[in-house]
Amino acid sequence: MTTPELQAGERIDQLYSQDIQIIQSPEVFAFSLDAVLLADFAKLPPRQSSQTVDLCAGNGAVGLFMSSKTRGKIAEVEIQPRLADMARRSVALNDLTERVTVYEGDLAQVNQWIPKDSVDVVTCNPPYFEDLPDSQKNPNRYLAIARHEITTTLATVVQTTSGLLKMNGKVYFVHRPDRLLQLLDLMTAHRLAPKRIRLVHPKPGKEANMVLVEAIKDGKPGGLRFLDPLIVYDGHGEYSPEVKALLYGTD
Amino acid sequence: MTTPELQAGERIDQLYSQDIQIIQSPEVFAFSLDAVLLADFAKLPPRQSSQTVDLCAGNGAVGLFMSSKTRGKIAEVEIQPRLADMARRSVALNDLTERVTVYEGDLAQVNQWIPKDSVDVVTCNPPYFEDLPDSQKNPNRYLAIARHEITTTLATVVQTTSGLLKMNGKVYFVHRPDRLLQLLDLMTAHRLAPKRIRLVHPKPGKEANMVLVEAIKDGKPGGLRFLDPLIVYDGHGEYSPEVKALLYGTD
Repeated sequence: MTTPELQAGERIDQLYSQDIQIIQSPEVFAFSLDAVLLADFAKLPPRQSSQTVDLCAGNGAVGLFMSSKTRGKIAEVEIQPRLADMARRSVALNDLTERVTVYEGDLAQVNQWIPKDSVDVVTCNPPYFEDLPDSQKNPNRYLAIARHEITTTLATVVQTTSGLLKMNGKVYFVHRPDRLLQLLDLMTAHRLAPKRIRLVHPKPGKEANMVLVEAIKDGKPGGLRFLDPLIVYDGHGEYSPEVKALLYGTD
Repeated sequence: MTTPELQAGERIDQLYSQDIQIIQSPEVFAFSLDAVLLADFAKLPPRQSSQTVDLCAGNGAVGLFMSSKTRGKIAEVEIQPRLADMARRSVALNDLTERVTVYEGDLAQVNQWIPKDSVDVVTCNPPYFEDLPDSQKNPNRYLAIARHEITTTLATVVQTTSGLLKMNGKVYFVHRPDRLLQLLDLMTAHRLAPKRIRLVHPKPGKEANMVLVEAIKDGKPGGLRFLDPLIVYDGHGEYSPEVKALLYGTD
């Protein structure tokens, strides 16, 4: 393990369940539960020849958290240079440079690095909010870009995802329930057949505030399944056993 | 309360929570939990001038179970004469003939009885299965028609629903999760904006086997919410407290 150079405001956090260390900075980008849940939801082919791509990679959390699921390659695509740099240093910190590559640039240009129809799995935790004229955006530009569709849109992300995937390749997205219809419509329009959905509820008795979606490129339409719901906190404000295991492991 | 004439094989069942008695016959039609959950999910305007329509009414269970939610009129539309007859006798049995009317015929012809754009709420527990050439259908014709799209299709049901509703009228459907995408697409195509979805899981940790959908005619697109999941049985095979209350009341 290399000792990383940390920039001002950065710290090293750990996902204990995966034994992954990750460089982050609350002022620039810090992974949230969404990334942990997406990495858990995604199924990766274990074989060495497999290729997974994480779009809107941020500081690389999703790709790093998934790295123990496959012996194959993982590409992380991030448009913000500062975040891509953090991701690269985290990859080195975890000794994963052989398998995990960070590409800095616009996901719409991803085929300059990764050919079309070549990828087994695409994951994405996209910006959740549309960039509407009256959107309240974070004055911090790093966070605004991560949260709002300033540098990309859901349509572009889905189209890019479909272009990357082989036939029968799989896609895993995390998004907000109020964008689910739009996401499903875009997927269907771009040859991605939604197959499994898991809703995430903050507490028992509360409506969902996150949704995980699996789709298959050129999959047969129909047969959509809704998995058992994931509840984040129990009735006493403690993490549920499932989330505890995802964050801290089961030991 | 009138003493009803029962035909061979018929019995009177009771939904204790609503104090409703209902004539049914296992060989012809018996309501299931789907009807109870749909009636619970639907919000009816309480005012006397309101009009609710239940399509694919079967033996009238949904309309009867909802009758305590409104002082308005409820119309039940059922194509099978034998079932419509049971529904009519149940309406009489519960002394609801002033407010609940059973129409026997094809829902596609509903405007012979109820004008277009005149209805506040439409509910429907449609046949769940497509009538495909290789569908395994119940040899019992009554049950086959209730379960398979033999006399109608989801497209016809949704189109008819939209035609009946006033602007901002509400629709409540129960269906199977693997038809949800199709249902949402049809709704959107017929001016019905999906607003609230509740998934029904048979047990904790199991995937959903039913879904309840609320949509609004000419509602603004977006803003779809997923309510807290409804779990039917607890880990010990007993009804969950919520379902127990729906079936037996809270006393």
